[in-house]
Amino acid sequence: MAKSDVKVLGSWPSPFVMRARIALNIKSVNYEYFEERLREGKSELLLKSNPVHKKIPVLIHGDKPICESLVIVQYIDETWSSGPSILPSDPYERATARFWAAYLDEKWFPSIRTIGMAQGEDARKAAIAQVEEGLVLLEEAFGKCSKGKRFFGGDQIGYLDIAFGCFLAWLRVTEKMSGIKLLSEANTPALLNWADRFCSDAAVKDVMPDTEKLAEFGKMVIAKMRGAAPPK
Amino acid sequence: MAKSDVKVLGSWPSPFVMRARIALNIKSVNYEYFEERLREGKSELLLKSNPVHKKIPVLIHGDKPICESLVIVQYIDETWSSGPSILPSDPYERATARFWAAYLDEKWFPSIRTIGMAQGEDARKAAIAQVEEGLVLLEEAFGKCSKGKRFFGGDQIGYLDIAFGCFLAWLRVTEKMSGIKLLSEANTPALLNWADRFCSDAAVKDVMPDTEKLAEFGKMVIAKMRGAAPPK
Repeated sequence: MAKSDVKVLGSWPSPFVMRARIALNIKSVNYEYFEERLREGKSELLLKSNPVHKKIPVLIHGDKPICESLVIVQYIDETWSSGPSILPSDPYERATARFWAAYLDEKWFPSIRTIGMAQGEDARKAAIAQVEEGLVLLEEAFGKCSKGKRFFGGDQIGYLDIAFGCFLAWLRVTEKMSGIKLLSEANTPALLNWADRFCSDAAVKDVMPDTEKLAEFGKMVIAKMRGAAPPK
Repeated sequence: MAKSDVKVLGSWPSPFVMRARIALNIKSVNYEYFEERLREGKSELLLKSNPVHKKIPVLIHGDKPICESLVIVQYIDETWSSGPSILPSDPYERATARFWAAYLDEKWFPSIRTIGMAQGEDARKAAIAQVEEGLVLLEEAFGKCSKGKRFFGGDQIGYLDIAFGCFLAWLRVTEKMSGIKLLSEANTPALLNWADRFCSDAAVKDVMPDTEKLAEFGKMVIAKMRGAAPPK
């Protein structure tokens, strides 16, 4: 097989990197994956490719770097027709998918992070309430977007599936570490089933991190953030 | 003229509302504009149309509400072909425009806000440095995107022109209030000329707020934020 002219610079625990990889898998695009050793220092290629933010993921197509995960997913959708469309074709459905993707990044995922990082019990409870409230909104959005089909995007994984689904491993880690079921049959039955379908999809399963391994990584990050020794 | 089925819920000092209005102007779409009286309480129509964020702008097309300014601009571009394209046609150029638009909203404009709101001199100086650093990056981006033409989008105002240009009135207010030239012939000559062209464009000039009026509004907001009486 010819060497691919597509590269992804990433790090395995990053939900944002997963977005780029899933989108490439959906389009059956071969790519070289470079795992950044972030603790040992960012690679020259990363610093050169994303000089503004110096962050992963970066997609490099030929000699062109593309940064920011949702920008990357849209670029992949607009560049390769070798697989189903990722964005819906209807402008209103596209707007709806983009709206929820922005909500997830700006409001919902920061609350997930806060659950793990919160110093006090009140802050932790407030963050859990925000995450749960968001899941109820997303359960309702699933009904409207999927129209009875398997994914937000219909029969196939689409933009909002990718935007939301990439957070499922961290959601499961948060459930495990906090002892609280965030996705449940009682409150979010549609999302609970969607999450299983998403994680077992052929485009997803090989890039979705193992919950146990990610939980270990999460504990290490929290310990570091709190300036404490890692738990024994 | 038939009553328009397009509405914009907005507030005159909001740069984000301006984005929606400029995009509609570019496409020659007639719309009804509703000025929200935010201090007197948000309208029922706003609360119903944007229940998640309860924020302006909202575009209402028929009975469909679309929220978040950059989502709205893309919706307008994808829905009406009655004017030039707003997003570039090339996927890499689209990705570049989306990247800088996200940078402006997430990094650059928050620093502009900080200049006005900062409590201490150190925080204010740091914010000014961030804004200036951002302008140098954007000056460089202008060279790459415009390819010698009048706008980031080429011969016509495009997505990144709208995303950035909507902040020009607040940039001028910040210059006026801080006494510092942020756009200058020495550091950002291309942006300085671009800003004049943007503000005098037919799609922009009627929705760009007057600097004096906006500065008065800005003083009032800062006084309110600091819990002090308005300056005399």
